[in-house]
Amino acid sequence: MSQYLAAALDRDDPLAPMRERFHIPQGVIYLDGHSLGAMPKAVRHEVNAAVETEWAEHLITAWRRDGWWRLPETLGDVLGGVIGATPDQTVVTDTTSINLHKVLWAALDANPGRQVIVAEADSFPADLYIIQGLLAGRPDLELRLLIEGQPIEEALGNDVAVALLNAVDYRTGALMDMAAVTATVQQAGALALWDLCHAAGAVPLALDDWNVDLAVGCTYKYLNGGPGAPAFIYAAERLHQRLRQPLSGWWAHAEPFAFETDFRADQGIRKFLCGTQPVLSMRALQASLDLFATADMAVVRAKSMALAELFIAEVERRCPDLSVLSPRDPAARGSHLALVHSEGFAISQALIARGVIGDFRAPDVMRFGMAPLYLRYGDIVDAVEALAQVMENSEWRDPKFRAPIEVT
Amino acid sequence: MSQYLAAALDRDDPLAPMRERFHIPQGVIYLDGHSLGAMPKAVRHEVNAAVETEWAEHLITAWRRDGWWRLPETLGDVLGGVIGATPDQTVVTDTTSINLHKVLWAALDANPGRQVIVAEADSFPADLYIIQGLLAGRPDLELRLLIEGQPIEEALGNDVAVALLNAVDYRTGALMDMAAVTATVQQAGALALWDLCHAAGAVPLALDDWNVDLAVGCTYKYLNGGPGAPAFIYAAERLHQRLRQPLSGWWAHAEPFAFETDFRADQGIRKFLCGTQPVLSMRALQASLDLFATADMAVVRAKSMALAELFIAEVERRCPDLSVLSPRDPAARGSHLALVHSEGFAISQALIARGVIGDFRAPDVMRFGMAPLYLRYGDIVDAVEALAQVMENSEWRDPKFRAPIEVT
Repeated sequence: MSQYLAAALDRDDPLAPMRERFHIPQGVIYLDGHSLGAMPKAVRHEVNAAVETEWAEHLITAWRRDGWWRLPETLGDVLGGVIGATPDQTVVTDTTSINLHKVLWAALDANPGRQVIVAEADSFPADLYIIQGLLAGRPDLELRLLIEGQPIEEALGNDVAVALLNAVDYRTGALMDMAAVTATVQQAGALALWDLCHAAGAVPLALDDWNVDLAVGCTYKYLNGGPGAPAFIYAAERLHQRLRQPLSGWWAHAEPFAFETDFRADQGIRKFLCGTQPVLSMRALQASLDLFATADMAVVRAKSMALAELFIAEVERRCPDLSVLSPRDPAARGSHLALVHSEGFAISQALIARGVIGDFRAPDVMRFGMAPLYLRYGDIVDAVEALAQVMENSEWRDPKFRAPIEVT
Repeated sequence: MSQYLAAALDRDDPLAPMRERFHIPQGVIYLDGHSLGAMPKAVRHEVNAAVETEWAEHLITAWRRDGWWRLPETLGDVLGGVIGATPDQTVVTDTTSINLHKVLWAALDANPGRQVIVAEADSFPADLYIIQGLLAGRPDLELRLLIEGQPIEEALGNDVAVALLNAVDYRTGALMDMAAVTATVQQAGALALWDLCHAAGAVPLALDDWNVDLAVGCTYKYLNGGPGAPAFIYAAERLHQRLRQPLSGWWAHAEPFAFETDFRADQGIRKFLCGTQPVLSMRALQASLDLFATADMAVVRAKSMALAELFIAEVERRCPDLSVLSPRDPAARGSHLALVHSEGFAISQALIARGVIGDFRAPDVMRFGMAPLYLRYGDIVDAVEALAQVMENSEWRDPKFRAPIEVT
């Protein structure tokens, strides 16, 4: 597609004004919003207010006066709007991994007599690590792995307490039929727990309508909450009474300021909290969620699909050596695309040197995130042009792009 | 003491220049640094750099380029200097409650055959809630409460895996003899685990020298890390090999970017991490820890004691209706003082109306924190003058000071 046509698409893009709400560095095409979202400009104001007015001036009184204490719920309710949850079912707190531990434990506890956790063998590895940690102290429990392509029915049974499933596969971008899978899991008497890390803010979700039981996810990918922004838990209200969790900190207490000796859980969604939350990071997230509150997720989804289709078409036209790992049906994908090449790491690095930032997952997957809030159609054409140059000129053969990167 | 004498003390105070490094609101005397420390001015720079340069400009590359990935250890090592720990034994991460869960589990796991946790009945309640949450899933475990004044030897025995003790009592401010108690606990074959929330940054600590096994604490009180700043874990290096913890997230993996299917713990202090940390909140803490790195904790302690002695002397001279709950020996106290009055809540509120911010813990304890980095001797004289006015004029009888405060 010529840049002329891309410019026409950008001109008609209903989300075009949204790009102005983000800071995008000069000379960068950012296709890694599925890993760390770009910065909403309003973050400056929110963080500055939290630092200069609330902490510096209001000091301890800010916990009440500025609503810090309620941030997990107030942000949770806004986030709920993005994932199809009515209020009082979502809290923003802690990390995805910790939240996963809480809800897995809760699901097992609520299903006595069932001791199996079902999870995909190709889960985001961090999810498997958390299950393994839970099992380390509980020889009575079992992890049953679902192999790629295996129907979930084969893993279910009357011994399964909970199935943990990734809404969007972190490598391929494949999107599950959450409503159907949730129903299948529940028909087997298990709770359906979704990891929404690569889905929230990227695809329309309707957790209430789909009768989802539990979900967790992060807020720093498509939700643009900032580095390490607190994660979230969704728990359907119908389950609140049945559920308890083991990280029973004082923020989950029914009367946290009564300083009672015995833990007594809040009856609502606050029961999933634990300790004191990082306010500055929460406030950055607030700026981003306020943006999402003005976005129509159907429009976001339509643009995500169009960007991805354009990306694939351009790659197929210009880069014959690259193959598309992601599902070809746009409706079967989340919002990132995976390309495969045995030299994917070096290609990614060479592309970054050209200002096009994607990422790489071993052994051979290059990922490109189509974040519709701040990407233009023109960016996609330019990005693939850069990719084509990297391939045609064999730029990736430069030894400097092949040296492993150490996190130091 | 007259303001003239207080001014002389302030003039000679070696920590006087430190006050200039903090933002203290006009007209406020802040005696609640034991709950939320005041804001170091350098926070502005650190947070601004993290937002404007690192997140906004460097995007995903900041994880490596700006050292985000290593923040738990780099901040942990600086914090280690404040608590008497050589490097590689302290990490900044998650919340005190979550960290407590990790280390309690680890201690029990490392002491098979011992199933008892000893803790003070008067522990900070949040600590008891965490123990109760751990026990909820483990009928094999037992919590043995140590009653105030009871010698710890009476609670120890060959069934005790770990003793959780508060270095400084959150109500009275009483400071334990950590070296002696640690030795006693260890003689009984148990691990000594300290909650340092009300001690870190307030009293000189020598965890290595005292042979402490494990410690946790928060960073938003005397350490001035900001609202909900991440907490810390200290684990003596000699124990690292023996210890594992159940929240085994990807940040604790030996090779987190290898995306292995099986969890394999880092062999060092990183094994106590779990998931992705809130970078903006971490960076605010960094600004504060950088200040502490320049402070001599012996000098901090000397001023803390002097401020407290001045406070007590003034209260006894001016406020006959108030009694001191804290130990009278300065060496037996942390850095906050507790006064008792049946109308303590209303008195605290009337004092806040006069710009003197302390806090209140039910049923009758008023707490006043002596944060030596930013308080002046003159502040103490002024604060007690305000307190005397509140008492002499019975200002606390005003109904507006007696209405309960709801967190909304």
